[in-house]
Amino acid sequence: MTIKLEIRSQHRCFGGLQSYYQHHSEIIGLPMRFSVYVPPEAGEQRLPVLFFLAGLTCTEETFMIKAGAQRYAAELGLMLVSMDTSPRNTGIPGEADDWEFGSGAGFYLDAIESPWSKYFHMESYVTQELYNIILGQFPVDPKSVGISGHSMGGHGALTLALRHPELYQSVSAFAPIAAPIHCPWGQKAFSRYLGKSPESWHKHDATALIESGHRLPTPLIDQGLDDPFLAEQLHPSYFEAACQQAEQPIILRRHAGYDHSYFFISTFIEDHLRHHHTFLTLDPADSAG
Amino acid sequence: MTIKLEIRSQHRCFGGLQSYYQHHSEIIGLPMRFSVYVPPEAGEQRLPVLFFLAGLTCTEETFMIKAGAQRYAAELGLMLVSMDTSPRNTGIPGEADDWEFGSGAGFYLDAIESPWSKYFHMESYVTQELYNIILGQFPVDPKSVGISGHSMGGHGALTLALRHPELYQSVSAFAPIAAPIHCPWGQKAFSRYLGKSPESWHKHDATALIESGHRLPTPLIDQGLDDPFLAEQLHPSYFEAACQQAEQPIILRRHAGYDHSYFFISTFIEDHLRHHHTFLTLDPADSAG
Repeated sequence: MTIKLEIRSQHRCFGGLQSYYQHHSEIIGLPMRFSVYVPPEAGEQRLPVLFFLAGLTCTEETFMIKAGAQRYAAELGLMLVSMDTSPRNTGIPGEADDWEFGSGAGFYLDAIESPWSKYFHMESYVTQELYNIILGQFPVDPKSVGISGHSMGGHGALTLALRHPELYQSVSAFAPIAAPIHCPWGQKAFSRYLGKSPESWHKHDATALIESGHRLPTPLIDQGLDDPFLAEQLHPSYFEAACQQAEQPIILRRHAGYDHSYFFISTFIEDHLRHHHTFLTLDPADSAG
Repeated sequence: MTIKLEIRSQHRCFGGLQSYYQHHSEIIGLPMRFSVYVPPEAGEQRLPVLFFLAGLTCTEETFMIKAGAQRYAAELGLMLVSMDTSPRNTGIPGEADDWEFGSGAGFYLDAIESPWSKYFHMESYVTQELYNIILGQFPVDPKSVGISGHSMGGHGALTLALRHPELYQSVSAFAPIAAPIHCPWGQKAFSRYLGKSPESWHKHDATALIESGHRLPTPLIDQGLDDPFLAEQLHPSYFEAACQQAEQPIILRRHAGYDHSYFFISTFIEDHLRHHHTFLTLDPADSAG
């Protein structure tokens, strides 16, 4: 089924095309917005594609404006997709009162607690509806799909890759919330979206998912050591320890002097796009062993 | 004299340091904000520096966030400076009611008409106060200073280079307002900031300055052909014709499909930084002929 997409704007960029779309989301029940960068090679072949999940307070525009990723995507022939970070204008009282929860803070999960469960279905939106739109209506190779993200979106990238290994062939993250059940951001969001059941929480915690046996393609994770959220919110060392215990390969790089901003992301986005491109263009025969 | 600078924030970026500053401006009489990117080589030698003047509605943050210039500045060892596009919070009634005039629209000139003449001294701010801060308080080579800008800031780059040839050794512009006396943006701004005197208007119009004998280092100018402001507001062909008539060298490139956005700027900023770097690192002995 073809979903009708409204083009909000389009901009030529590095020879390719940066587009912003809006559509009615069946899964969320409201309009949703996403963004796509199609590199100049498109039209001649089916391209590998990278989904980028942004962090708290961001929108479908943030990554495309601030990361400087198009230059490398154009060079590599990689399509880029980003999306809004939550449903908007749901009418739920107080939805936009807290930058850590609600609007701009969907946490890439399907809420099961009322009233959020009516609209906040970001996991199904990203892994089903938007996934199908991108694979069905853009020139994408369906076997070459990567996922990355920043902060809350890094949590999203890791957990969606762990929960849906059939969907993503490459994974990376910038400063992910790597153990949300152990930090204030995660505890606030999980208690309100998921309720009190520890079992529900563990299903959406990257570290707990590794501990319970889930696996993912070797993720590249970058973390700035001057990130003001590192000590209290992010806990990459918990995820790293769980991966080591489980013999899950991981590339975790710690960078002196870098913070949580897109100035950090822009510095290392080239490495991430090359990481994804390498995984997404492997000859399956080469990796069969 | 050392001006006291308040650091608003700093971010590591491509091995260098992105900083946002605020200070009390003597020339404007109010606080002003600017931004500096210092590439990783700094501290060992005095660096060439590029001032970038942003367009209507922008601030000192816009270029640093959206252009993706730091990557190339880090590689080339070029310092970058940008600044707010007008005084703010002057108390002048209606100062922020119009996106084309007043707040965010200082046009890089010194207003002579009341009430704007009290605070709107952007030409003196950029060419004197901020220039002296950058050359006096940062590791800059005072003989290697370039100027560039976008739209209203492209007008600023061209006119300030033409009016102050002793200050700038390299020039470029993206989609400049190249003949403001012939377009609605320029006519609105000049009539309110400068009054009715045609002589005053001609002193701040890049095309008229060329016609009256002013010259500048060969400017690199990029213009998108899908720019929605091209036909009515920008008039690069007027500037081009005046340069040809005056035998002023100029590099004007027209790009099919590109618009007025920072997606356009980000695509070509590498070429601009290399253009400035080439002009700013010429051995004076080589160019003496």
